Amino acid sequence: MAKHGKVSMAVVRRLPKYHRYLGELMENDIKRISSYELSKLTGFTASQIRQDFNNFGGFGQQGYGYNVEELYNQLGNILGLDKGYNTIIIGAGNLGQAIANYRNFDNRGFRLIGIFEKNPRYMGLKIRDIPIMDIDELEGFSKDHKVDIAVITTPKEAAQEIADRVIALGVEAIWNFAPVDIKVPEGIVVENVHLSESLLALSFLIKESKRESENV
Amino acid sequence: MAKHGKVSMAVVRRLPKYHRYLGELMENDIKRISSYELSKLTGFTASQIRQDFNNFGGFGQQGYGYNVEELYNQLGNILGLDKGYNTIIIGAGNLGQAIANYRNFDNRGFRLIGIFEKNPRYMGLKIRDIPIMDIDELEGFSKDHKVDIAVITTPKEAAQEIADRVIALGVEAIWNFAPVDIKVPEGIVVENVHLSESLLALSFLIKESKRESENV
Repeated sequence: MAKHGKVSMAVVRRLPKYHRYLGELMENDIKRISSYELSKLTGFTASQIRQDFNNFGGFGQQGYGYNVEELYNQLGNILGLDKGYNTIIIGAGNLGQAIANYRNFDNRGFRLIGIFEKNPRYMGLKIRDIPIMDIDELEGFSKDHKVDIAVITTPKEAAQEIADRVIALGVEAIWNFAPVDIKVPEGIVVENVHLSESLLALSFLIKESKRESENV
Repeated sequence: MAKHGKVSMAVVRRLPKYHRYLGELMENDIKRISSYELSKLTGFTASQIRQDFNNFGGFGQQGYGYNVEELYNQLGNILGLDKGYNTIIIGAGNLGQAIANYRNFDNRGFRLIGIFEKNPRYMGLKIRDIPIMDIDELEGFSKDHKVDIAVITTPKEAAQEIADRVIALGVEAIWNFAPVDIKVPEGIVVENVHLSESLLALSFLIKESKRESENV
């Protein structure tokens, strides 16, 4: 793969979309797609798509377009799906359980190896054969298991403390569902899923939609 | 409130962040904040913040900064939090249950009034006093209840069909968690939460982070 400089967050957000669309094409047994068709499918211009891919090498051929399976696999490699990541979840409430049961988790190389919780009523319960452990056992667990990614699905009050603890264990990335910014040292990756912000964006868009229909 | 033209999606994404940060300031009993401090807190320039707010009227005062509670409430109104929305969830698996139990739901005016599911094993169970109903009862339910928002937490194969059905009932907005694009008529608001894409972005960022540390 071609060496590349740092890519912008805009590109980081588009790459998984391309991967998803290509996955759908594969499910529908589509073997080949032109720049134009990919543009119509994704909503991005053919030029934007080409630019994004050019960060990583030349894909596709003039006059042919793209081979779907090849591009899907290449994007998968670019996105790091060829790696495996040992993953733990902290917070075994509904959201943590939803993530633990999330179908795409394992088949993308995110190996769920532990689930931690502080509420005793969840202890010993299993999700997909993984027992829910007491959060106090976190450090002991990490002596025997290398943990790459921590998913934080705790209430917001606990998130920073949990982040500090998992970073101390050596995790390289945090998938954060708590509605708060967590502070991490340089080099630790944090991806936030701010459901509250998504819901508020929805609320705003409803309001705008009503304004627009009133103004017609 | 000042009339405003259509705002960009970039603004739509920033407004809920401001609201969240101001909420945190209020929790910490902070009464007042300067442009500079708000800029440091949010990561956006004071100029960007000012521009965003200017879409909706003049907030804050030269030399004083912003009154936190006032700005929080004004943003709340802009975001439509003064309205109430009758909300249903379709898909009562872990993710649907997580959303149903989501603490911020009700106190933002999103009144959960129904949960629908097709798997019989969930029927009759209750989440927060709301019984899980058979999806076949959806149309009958809507004769007695006005539904404003539908949350789709079904597998992706079901999402479009469910979207079509709720639109036929008159919902104005869909909060879509299924990992697929749903097609809706003009004027219907869709807010997607693509967890799979978030996870892939995380994977990519880990890979990039490793590349960068190797290149140092």
